[in-house]
Amino acid sequence: MARLIATLGTSPGGIFESYKNLIEGNYQGDNVEKVKIDEVYIIRTSDKAVEFAWKLVKAIFTCCGAKDVRVYDIPLSITDINSRQDFLTFKREVESKINNGDFVDITGGRKSMSVAAAMSARNRNAKIITTVVPQAEYNRVQNLIKQLEPREKEIEMAGEGKCQTIDICQLVSKSALTILLS
Amino acid sequence: MARLIATLGTSPGGIFESYKNLIEGNYQGDNVEKVKIDEVYIIRTSDKAVEFAWKLVKAIFTCCGAKDVRVYDIPLSITDINSRQDFLTFKREVESKINNGDFVDITGGRKSMSVAAAMSARNRNAKIITTVVPQAEYNRVQNLIKQLEPREKEIEMAGEGKCQTIDICQLVSKSALTILLS
Repeated sequence: MARLIATLGTSPGGIFESYKNLIEGNYQGDNVEKVKIDEVYIIRTSDKAVEFAWKLVKAIFTCCGAKDVRVYDIPLSITDINSRQDFLTFKREVESKINNGDFVDITGGRKSMSVAAAMSARNRNAKIITTVVPQAEYNRVQNLIKQLEPREKEIEMAGEGKCQTIDICQLVSKSALTILLS
Repeated sequence: MARLIATLGTSPGGIFESYKNLIEGNYQGDNVEKVKIDEVYIIRTSDKAVEFAWKLVKAIFTCCGAKDVRVYDIPLSITDINSRQDFLTFKREVESKINNGDFVDITGGRKSMSVAAAMSARNRNAKIITTVVPQAEYNRVQNLIKQLEPREKEIEMAGEGKCQTIDICQLVSKSALTILLS
């Protein structure tokens, strides 16, 4: 069993797609095989927009066909990376969550978060992945997210398993490509 | 003498500020000191907007007070990172440019480029830096860049030393913070 550790920014973009592509063995890399993932850790700041993105991620994992996987929210006390101290705090937290053989998804969040996650993955002998989405598809999802903003309550309910009132799975991209970077 | 190796995206953002902050010893890190930099390498794709950003960087270095430094443009044949092959091409190129003790600026370009540069820096025993700009300041610079788009000819001339016709140094941010990440 492997774990997926992902940084999260203001868009849920890519984490569920990374998960799905890994378990289906549908990614670019050497020795591609289906990966059994039983835990997903989302590392994020406590910025308001990022908190909303986390609710979307939770709803997507709950409603869009993820099976036998637990998704953990790891909110840090910082709201952004504006100093060396913020960076070191973020890196220490990410690194403490990574085990040998885990998959670390660097797609979400600030660039310095991605770099912190990649450096930590290297230190822990974990694999580094990213998921890319064509620009037009990315724009489609961003527009949908804007429309969903006033419906936070329903999104929270979807995250609790009440998936009927909101079509959260539109946010999942079918053309996302996952790449094993290292 | 150290070199500064920087990834570049569609915005010139941060490279000149990184250079300036390093030579002035004005950055966050352990054992901060003034760094002597005599060469700057800009690694970029051959995307049209990125090419324009390169012209801005060249004009800024020419007109805004950089001294005794040579700036090299390293355009790659790829236009973006859309596959594992693109990533590996980019990483190989970055890594071939980095020497022990260099400073690698991961601020510009796609996240996967930043990660490629950071991983390469680690492999080569180089230092990793980033430069952050407050959001309002970032927006100011982005708006200015939009206004400069029709003036490509003048920007090219500024890059050749004819700095009088265009105030390119407005693009340089005074509130940019450079951080030594590793």
